[in-house]
Order: sequence, then structure tokens, then C-alpha cells
Amino acid sequence: MPGDVPGAAPLTRAELEHASGAEVRAAIRDGRWTGTTKRMALGREQANLTILPERYAFDFLRFCHRNPKPLPLLDVTDPGDPEPALVAPGADLRTDVAAYRIYRDGVPAGDVADLLQVWRPDHVAFLTGCNLSLDQVMLDTGIPLPHLLDEHAWPAQYVSSIPCRPAGAFHGTNVVSMRPVPEALLVKVIELTARFPRNHGAPLHVGDPRAIGITDLARVDWGRPNRVGPGTVPVFFACGITAQAVAMAARIPEMITHVPGRMFVTDVAVVDPTPGWASAAQPPG
Amino acid sequence: MPGDVPGAAPLTRAELEHASGAEVRAAIRDGRWTGTTKRMALGREQANLTILPERYAFDFLRFCHRNPKPLPLLDVTDPGDPEPALVAPGADLRTDVAAYRIYRDGVPAGDVADLLQVWRPDHVAFLTGCNLSLDQVMLDTGIPLPHLLDEHAWPAQYVSSIPCRPAGAFHGTNVVSMRPVPEALLVKVIELTARFPRNHGAPLHVGDPRAIGITDLARVDWGRPNRVGPGTVPVFFACGITAQAVAMAARIPEMITHVPGRMFVTDVAVVDPTPGWASAAQPPG
Repeated sequence: MPGDVPGAAPLTRAELEHASGAEVRAAIRDGRWTGTTKRMALGREQANLTILPERYAFDFLRFCHRNPKPLPLLDVTDPGDPEPALVAPGADLRTDVAAYRIYRDGVPAGDVADLLQVWRPDHVAFLTGCNLSLDQVMLDTGIPLPHLLDEHAWPAQYVSSIPCRPAGAFHGTNVVSMRPVPEALLVKVIELTARFPRNHGAPLHVGDPRAIGITDLARVDWGRPNRVGPGTVPVFFACGITAQAVAMAARIPEMITHVPGRMFVTDVAVVDPTPGWASAAQPPG
Repeated sequence: MPGDVPGAAPLTRAELEHASGAEVRAAIRDGRWTGTTKRMALGREQANLTILPERYAFDFLRFCHRNPKPLPLLDVTDPGDPEPALVAPGADLRTDVAAYRIYRDGVPAGDVADLLQVWRPDHVAFLTGCNLSLDQVMLDTGIPLPHLLDEHAWPAQYVSSIPCRPAGAFHGTNVVSMRPVPEALLVKVIELTARFPRNHGAPLHVGDPRAIGITDLARVDWGRPNRVGPGTVPVFFACGITAQAVAMAARIPEMITHVPGRMFVTDVAVVDPTPGWASAAQPPG
């Protein structure tokens, strides 16, 4: 267990697979894990992070609500408060992500390991759902997604032509993640993912990439190409990177996100339909 | 059908039971229906309306997200825009509710039939889910709720002691609606309502009212008392009136709501898991 390892020795992905959300966050905060979070804290919600100045926060919150497939909202902080109290009480969004990317006027302006020198009282942080949260579900149900079979594989991500519903300063199209699925498992994958709207839910599209504006599967916008072999079909899910794409397109003066693949790991069980609501007699604290 | 009746003749509830959302809204807009919306446009989402000045909108939107049981968000408008484009394209929130209540500094300051003289460019409207949306589900599955059996009955609503998660200016406790359920149907009611999180989902509490701060079921805060007879158990659901209760408690300078029971009727089918998302090839307009 991570807690048994003293000092700052790096940890392996295998050591963090069955760790709690808090243990993964501690390993990241202490610099003992700097990689992607796939297969980590299996069964817990992982999240995309978007930090914006308060003057854009109401626009972006409406944008999330209007586009729940790419941006299922898990938590939004009060201005200046780095604690996501709903999904990870006690966590600190300035330190608990492995790498942060700062955007200025819609252009990446450098990555940093923490936000301690950057965080301001007008910063608002949004956490939105992520497909990696379903790694345990996919393993349990025998869905052979490439990123679970191969340490070096990753979902392939593309800007699609599927429009988002605009809100204030935010507008653009959906980013999608493509995973090749064996034809025999297609209906099962749709049934299964439909049960998890916090993790983008059912696919946005199945089949011909050109129908959603993708002309060449080999040219990814993020991630790595995945081979669509014989007997498999390309399945496109809404992707949380949509937030970064629209903020870049709108040239938002300042935005901070996680570096793709380095997600924020929450305490929320993927299978918990109403986190924090055990019963009315023990209401949320 | 409502469309067959020329002029301004009043309509009956029976005539509007199987009307579309747009037909019910037209009847209300034309003054041909002024009563409650129970059993109307059966199978369509009905909504609580809360209108606030933009300076409170980000706080209230966070409050909704943190309290999804009482305030499941269906739509939120852009400032100054009275059209809820997500759930009822073409509707007008200034005219399509049967009666509106204006609050000043947390105190009711009068009811009006429309908002044409009141609406401002900084007004933001929030639509949140409502139990009445489940009338068709309850009828189909044989759950004998009093308000469906008796024209004059109505759910009994109380301020409970169950705290809400605060957000900015908004804080307080949950308002709950009590419906007596036959003991033999209790598990079924919980299973069934859990599938409809947009309509407050599973109950907050079952049984002893004192466990959630209600000392006398005969003294309702809204609605009408419902008898808990032999063989029935009181079941308490989160209620959308929570928005009014917390805004009153916080003495928000200005808020406009529907008059209780006069809900806004949307176009969204209660059974549609992802309104507006037929397929990626026909994306939301």
C-alpha cells in the first residue's frame, strides 16, 4: 500500500491501482507519481480540471449544463477556494494533479507541477467527468479497450464537427475520444456506458468518422491513434478535452487545466448514484 | 384537442391531460388555464421556475448543482433571454406560467399573471425538476398517490431539518413533499423514483417525520395535509420549493417564481435520458 512506503520513492501504476482516491492524490502531491492516471484508484471517479477567472464562471457553468455529454459536472468550487468539497473533501486542487497547463489568450503558455504561486482569489475550478473512471467497469465486464491492454496505448482524441450548445463566451464543437470495439460487443458497450452519464454516457457516434468531420483517424488531435482492426468498429464518445478546445477557440484570456491524461482523482465511487446522500438522517456534511 | 377550441374559452384539466407541452403553454399564455398543472401534458417534464438578477446567478447555479435532489437543473437561460431553449424552444418564460410570485427582500410582494412589465436584461431564469412530471409514471405503475386520485388533493410540503449544501448567498434546509405510500408498494416506489433523478429521484426519508424535524404532519408549510392511514407510510421527497425557502431565508433582494402548483410545462419526455441528443449526425440545434 502507498502508505507503507516512507520517503519519496516513486510508486508504480500497479501500486496505485487499488489505492483510494486520497492515496493517489497524496502520491501525486508528494511527487511520487507524475504519469497518467489510467487504471488508478479503480472504481473512483476521475475528473478533468478547468480553472477560470470568476468573470467567466457563470458562462462556463451554463456551458457545462448545456453540454452534459462532453462536460458532466462533478464539482465547482467557490471563488478562491481550492477544495472540491463535494467530491474530494480535504483535497487541494493547487497540488493534487500531476501536471497543470496554463493557457493565455487561447494558447498554451507552459506546464507547471503545482499552482501554489499561480492561484488567485478569483479562480473558480470545475471538475467534469472522465472515461478513465470506467476502467474498472470495462475490466469487470471484459471490454478489451486498447488503453487497458497495453501500458503505452491511449484513447485517440479528435475535434469533431458536432456542435456544442453555446453559452456566453464559450462555443465550438465536441472533442471525441475514439475506442475500437469488437462488433460483437457494440450493443453491450452502448448499454453499459449509457448507465454512466457522469462519464460521458453512451457514445455520440458509431462508425464512419467522416459523418462527424474526421477525415483521417491516423491524425489525432490529442492522445494516440488506435487501430480499428478487422471485426472492430470505431466508437466515438464525448470527451472532456472539449472544455480546452472551446476555451482555446474563444481565446479566453486565462485558463488552467490538467495536462491530458493526468486527471484529478476523486473519492466518489463510480457506482454511487447520489454521492454524499447516504440517508436524510445522516445528511451531507 | 386544445387546438380545436377557438377563442378564449376556458379549458378543463381533462382536455389538457394528453396535450403537448406547447399546447399547455399556449392555453396558459392565452388565459384559458390558470390552475395547477398536475396531470397535464402527461409524460412531459414540468419545472419549478426561479428568476434571479444576474449577480446572484452563479451562486444559485452552484447551489443547484450541490443540491441535486431538491433542485435538479433542467435549464438555465442566458441573462435577459426569456426562452428556455434547451427544454422548450420557442417558449417565453414571461408569459407561459399561469401565475408568478414576486419576492422582495425574502418576502412575498404580490402575484402577477405575466412578467411582460417586470422582466429585465439582467434576469436569469432557472428551471428545476418537479414530482408532478411523474404523474404518468405513477398512473401507469398503479401507485395511488392522493393528488392523482382526488382533484382537490395536493402533496403536503414541509420545511425539514435536512441541511442543503450552501453556495454563496444561498443556504438553508430542504423543503420536502410528503406522500403517503401503501407499505406493500414502498420498495417499488423507491426503485421507481430512483430512476428519475430529474424529478427529485428516490425519497430523502421514509417514516418518522420527527427524524427530519417535522413535529406535526397536520401543519403544512405549503400544499395540503395528506392522511397517513393504516397500512401506509409517510414518504418524504426533496421538493423544488427549497429554492424559494432558501432565497427567503437569505433575504435575496429580488426573486420571481411560479406560484406553487402552477409549473412550467416543457417539451421534454420524462423517459428521454438525453433530451436533444437523437444522434451525433443530427446534433442539438
